[in-house]
This record gives sequence, C-alpha cells and structure tokens, in this order.
Amino acid sequence: MSRIEIKNEYQLDAPTRQVVASLEIDTQGIGVTDMTEAIKAWIEKQGFRDGLVALLVMHTSASLTIQENADPDVHSDLTDALARIAPESAPWRHIAEGPDDMPAHVKSALTDTSLALPVRHGKLVLGTWQAVYLVEHRQHAHARSVQMHYVGS
Amino acid sequence: MSRIEIKNEYQLDAPTRQVVASLEIDTQGIGVTDMTEAIKAWIEKQGFRDGLVALLVMHTSASLTIQENADPDVHSDLTDALARIAPESAPWRHIAEGPDDMPAHVKSALTDTSLALPVRHGKLVLGTWQAVYLVEHRQHAHARSVQMHYVGS
Amino acid sequence: MSRIEIKNEYQLDAPTRQVVASLEIDTQGIGVTDMTEAIKAWIEKQGFRDGLVALLVMHTSASLTIQENADPDVHSDLTDALARIAPESAPWRHIAEGPDDMPAHVKSALTDTSLALPVRHGKLVLGTWQAVYLVEHRQHAHARSVQMHYVGS
Repeated sequence: MSRIEIKNEYQLDAPTRQVVASLEIDTQGIGVTDMTEAIKAWIEKQGFRDGLVALLVMHTSASLTIQENADPDVHSDLTDALARIAPESAPWRHIAEGPDDMPAHVKSALTDTSLALPVRHGKLVLGTWQAVYLVEHRQHAHARSVQMHYVGS
Repeated sequence: MSRIEIKNEYQLDAPTRQVVASLEIDTQGIGVTDMTEAIKAWIEKQGFRDGLVALLVMHTSASLTIQENADPDVHSDLTDALARIAPESAPWRHIAEGPDDMPAHVKSALTDTSLALPVRHGKLVLGTWQAVYLVEHRQHAHARSVQMHYVGS
Repeated sequence: MSRIEIKNEYQLDAPTRQVVASLEIDTQGIGVTDMTEAIKAWIEKQGFRDGLVALLVMHTSASLTIQENADPDVHSDLTDALARIAPESAPWRHIAEGPDDMPAHVKSALTDTSLALPVRHGKLVLGTWQAVYLVEHRQHAHARSVQMHYVGS
C-alpha cells in the first residue's frame, strides 16, 4: 500500500488582488524556452505574497509544460518523442500551412495549454528539478504570447 | 536565444465573488463540441469583470481541449491522431463496456480534464484562433457535464 | 448539432481564505495512487466551503490524472498505454538515471502536472466515476510530494 500523509499546512493571507500581464516570447522553431525566471521576476516585482498564477498560452501550435531543468537532453528527447507520437508523415487533412502545422496542433493538445501555479510567501512553488517551459511546435521562429493571471494577496 | 518580455500589465478588481454552473452537452459520438460561446454567454449574463473560470469535465471518457477554431479538418485530424495513439486494437484488459471504452480513458488522460481560463474586463481571454472544446471519445452519443467555477469580481 | 445548456447556477460565498498543505505519498513503482480520500479529508478538516483547490506535483517523473475509479484494469491499461507511447526502447539521449527515466519525463508531459478542482458547499466536486491519482512513472518506489493550494471561503 502506498502511504499518504498531509504535511506543511499553512494559513495564508486572504486573496485581495488580481494582476495580469503577458509574457512575450520569440521562439527559434521547434524546442523549449524556459519561462521560469521571467515568471519569478514578475512575482517579485509585483510583490505578490500568496496566491495562484494561472498561465494560458494564446496559440494552438505552441504549448506549456513543466519539465526537468537540469539536462538539455531531456528537452531534445521530449521534442523527439512528440515527433514520433504526431509525425509529419501521418495522413493529415489540414496541410495548407505546411507539414508541421497539424502535428503542432496535436502536440499542443497532448501537452498543456493552461497551468495554475502556487505562489507562497512571495515565491513561486516548484520542485527542485522543475521549470516552466513554452514549447514551440512549428519548424520556424514565432512570436508567442502567454497570459499570466494572478489571484492572491 | 529566445527573447522574453513582460507586457500589458494591469491591476484588476479584487476577487469578491464565486459563481458556479454546469454546462450540459449532448454529444453525437466521437468528435468535438465548441463550448466557447456558451462560456462567453455565461460570463456576460453574470456580469463577471475580472477573474478565473475553472472548467472540470465530470467524465473519464470525454475531455477538454483548447484547439484551432477555423478549420474543421483540424478536429478530424485530432480525433484520428488520438485513435492512432490509443487504438481500439491494442491489448486492453478493460473491455466490458466495448472496444472504444479503454481508448476513451487513455485519450482523456492525454488531453485535459481541468482548465483555468482568465476573464478580463468582462471578456474571456483566448487567442484569435483558440476555442474551448469538449471532446467526446466514445463511439455513441452521450450526455456530458462540465462544471464551471468562477472566482473573481 | 450538439445541444449545450447551462444549469445549476449558484452564487457561493466570496473568497476570503487561502490555505496550503502538501500531500506526501510513498509510491511502489509504476502505477497509480488514489489521492481522492486524502484531499477530501483535508477539505473537511479545514472546513472549506466554496473555492478551488489547485494541485501541483513537485516532480517531472510522476504526474497527476483524473481517471475511472471502479475497475483496477483501467489503471493497468493506462500505464501499459503510456509504456507503448513512450517506450524504454526508443533512442533516448537522457539515459544516465536508467532506461525508465526519460520515458517517465515524457509520460509526465503527456498527463497532468497541475489541476484546479472545485469545492462546493464543503465537498470536492468530481464525477461519479472520477478519482484523482498520482501516477508514478519510475520503476522503483519513490517519495512524492503534491502541493495543495486552496483559494476560497
């Protein structure tokens, strides 16, 4: 049997603020961009204490993921795995914008479009090896936008 | 290097309300149903200003996704891709409810069960080409329920 | 045409509290652990009324999913399906921690890292057949942590 235990319980400040901003990211084609430092900088600049940051990618051929931040091979392996799961060679109908377009939509559906991340005592809560990435699924460079919506104190 | 920039920062009204409702959707078998207008109509009817709408699908063989809203071929290609990733012909144990049942559970796990979407100045925030879909993974028509939970002003 | 209807609309108490805790889970290798009762017990113990519980798994080789809670075969079929989608035999670069490591990262990216679940009138809102699972993707037992962040009343 797996053990389950509840720990580290805290009462935080009541939610009294909402602040939004967008992260504008220029990608370089297929691959990941680490957004973690930009999100942390925004939290610090705004002086957020306790709350949730909801992230929403505004596109259907780029997406979000939380992944290992230590070994760049993880990012290459992830994009390779997605290319095997949704290959350009599959019999797609939606091909007007190029062979990488429909695979990009499928990869977006399989990864994350929306994330809700905790902020506690002024810090973004993430595991030691976690970072928040934008994943570009198109072959060419694109300008991408991620909405950040904070509800908290 | 990918460029990252923070733009369009706004302070919004403090969160002071919570309202919930369910979206009841009759599906016609495998395929997608666009829920965007129904969600927007609810936001407008309730007079929400700034906040988050959390969506939760109440089923494990239908799910949520945010996808391209312009070309219906994208929806056929997406359901075909999911059928290749979780084919009915795989050696499933859970077959009592039919060959489409376990693939439906896997497709649900790979797409979204829960989404958190921003509302700003009374409008649902989505990219130009984005719509919010319920994805029916069973062969036959089903009555599906999606919970909407708003926290905001 | 699919029918869409809005039902069961309620005004809830305003959001006035935030409380956090972590769920500590000892897993037994590849497979799922049902966290639903632990989450419900926390909601009841804290006396939450109306709000959202955001869950975040603190790891990149274990993840979250909402799945069928009735037939254990569903869980075996799900882990088998993930093993076919991200097999250990694929040509991974990131192999220093063993052949199950990179497949675990891909399986995490394909399932959920973050979930936002509604609480209404003191109860976690889930469908009849839904439970919230931690999915362990590594072959061996691990100690896993899931952050719970409540915003509500």
